[in-house]
Amino acid sequence: MAAFAAKDPDFEQRVRASFARQRFMDTLGITMDRVGPGECVLSMGFRPDLCQQHGYVHAGATTALADSAAGYAAYSLMPAGSSVLTVEYKLNLLAPAAGKRFVARAVVEKPGRTLSVVRSEVAAVADDGSERAVALMQATMMCLADTSDAPALSAGPA
Amino acid sequence: MAAFAAKDPDFEQRVRASFARQRFMDTLGITMDRVGPGECVLSMGFRPDLCQQHGYVHAGATTALADSAAGYAAYSLMPAGSSVLTVEYKLNLLAPAAGKRFVARAVVEKPGRTLSVVRSEVAAVADDGSERAVALMQATMMCLADTSDAPALSAGPA
Amino acid sequence: MAAFAAKDPDFEQRVRASFARQRFMDTLGITMDRVGPGECVLSMGFRPDLCQQHGYVHAGATTALADSAAGYAAYSLMPAGSSVLTVEYKLNLLAPAAGKRFVARAVVEKPGRTLSVVRSEVAAVADDGSERAVALMQATMMCLADTSDAPALSAGPA
Amino acid sequence: MAAFAAKDPDFEQRVRASFARQRFMDTLGITMDRVGPGECVLSMGFRPDLCQQHGYVHAGATTALADSAAGYAAYSLMPAGSSVLTVEYKLNLLAPAAGKRFVARAVVEKPGRTLSVVRSEVAAVADDGSERAVALMQATMMCLADTSDAPALSAGPA
Repeated sequence: MAAFAAKDPDFEQRVRASFARQRFMDTLGITMDRVGPGECVLSMGFRPDLCQQHGYVHAGATTALADSAAGYAAYSLMPAGSSVLTVEYKLNLLAPAAGKRFVARAVVEKPGRTLSVVRSEVAAVADDGSERAVALMQATMMCLADTSDAPALSAGPA
Repeated sequence: MAAFAAKDPDFEQRVRASFARQRFMDTLGITMDRVGPGECVLSMGFRPDLCQQHGYVHAGATTALADSAAGYAAYSLMPAGSSVLTVEYKLNLLAPAAGKRFVARAVVEKPGRTLSVVRSEVAAVADDGSERAVALMQATMMCLADTSDAPALSAGPA
Repeated sequence: MAAFAAKDPDFEQRVRASFARQRFMDTLGITMDRVGPGECVLSMGFRPDLCQQHGYVHAGATTALADSAAGYAAYSLMPAGSSVLTVEYKLNLLAPAAGKRFVARAVVEKPGRTLSVVRSEVAAVADDGSERAVALMQATMMCLADTSDAPALSAGPA
Repeated sequence: MAAFAAKDPDFEQRVRASFARQRFMDTLGITMDRVGPGECVLSMGFRPDLCQQHGYVHAGATTALADSAAGYAAYSLMPAGSSVLTVEYKLNLLAPAAGKRFVARAVVEKPGRTLSVVRSEVAAVADDGSERAVALMQATMMCLADTSDAPALSAGPA
């Protein structure tokens, strides 16, 4: 994993405060397991009401997990007072999302003043703790310096 | 909109039955408003528990809406007895997802025996009924001929 | 096609001057057939030295055509003195690129002060003038206001 | 790097023979530096006629390099007698493509009987041998079992 230095010494508090305001994370049961400079790990337990017609977790829920991990990985490297938003992402589904728990691990590939490119992998964790890759995302995140009235995480380009 | 002919005369019943089994659609409050040969329209009402930290609908919910519309647009053209799964998609966020309701309109760009390419647009509907584009998806869907034990919609490539 | 108004009355001259400096367009035999506010049409003749191992045009050449059309469609709406660069794109290949000529038609889906989203379609033209879609691109372009020492078209995010 | 086993003991000969038939690789001056089970390295020297208007290598050339590396990484794991084609890819540009040489390193993320997901990174090599990441691709490749009259690499889904 590439080593980055956070410009904002209080990045973890800033990232966790933003995450706590995302009500959709609560709706899906997503928790923030770890955040470091340029990386973020989120996870989500299996629930039948997150599933598609064959009992696997829906790609939309997997995407919410992967996107939020990617956004916060990028946000950890942004300056205090900034806001992050998702410009776009591409997700490949690698295997049916079957498991007890799902973990998204996001790492910044290229940080930038305005745009950052992030990779986010989602693995399914089985009852015995073994993991299987279920999705792979490549995302572009944008930093908004002035957040007084800016659109927020995952709100799209200004 | 391109005109396609459905191979399966009962495509609408097949599509709607599959949609009805997707519990995640219920969780998000998504309804199927229309399905035709090669096209599908889904919609979702605004709810605070679908939002990110600034009160806009989370990209993951927008993606679930766009992906399901895309999958069922493709599925409408597939033969009876088949199953559809999402291979991958790319989504651009165009504007903050603010509105009373969100509508995804998906159209098949290129149907194929195995793979289909679909475009899915999400618009936000304001109180006065006016619309604003909020997201644009380009997706690849796969047809599984034998569905006896196949992975399901949005389960990823076999 | 959405109707846009160009901020720069001399947009066509600016776009064509930039295109003329792209030596790779010469290498591939790509010409600019049309540019309007928010749209651009480029074309490329078939040549055996643009092909992959089965005699179809290589996806890289198709991408160069689609990307340049997308970039100049976006650039037509940017202000005088600005520069455009490709942030990212996603391309689906729809059919083998066989034909006498290949035409990319790009249209801006969402213009923005900083980022613009563009759709670019590539069609193969047969000897009899009939067309067949061969590729579909969804791209994100960035406007750089100060171009004194900026990276250029397709150079990536700063 | 994940370790894969090639099903076809003669995969290297098969991959190199296919590469040798790609005339576009010659046109761009691309060479195959290495191929192993599930991985491939291609490189391309800087040439002014590969550039866009500011003297950086055009994204289309970078894409041709990244796509071919990705396709052959996937093809190395496919059975004898098969053919590979590009379904789609997404490319982020990370920095201006300035340098003496450009190296694409592709690794299969998820091999599949029909579809494979591949990651391909392009780095620019400076005169002193130092490297800088310039592009990142996530691609989907398809295996065609019967290649008697199949579309070829980068020809799009059947």
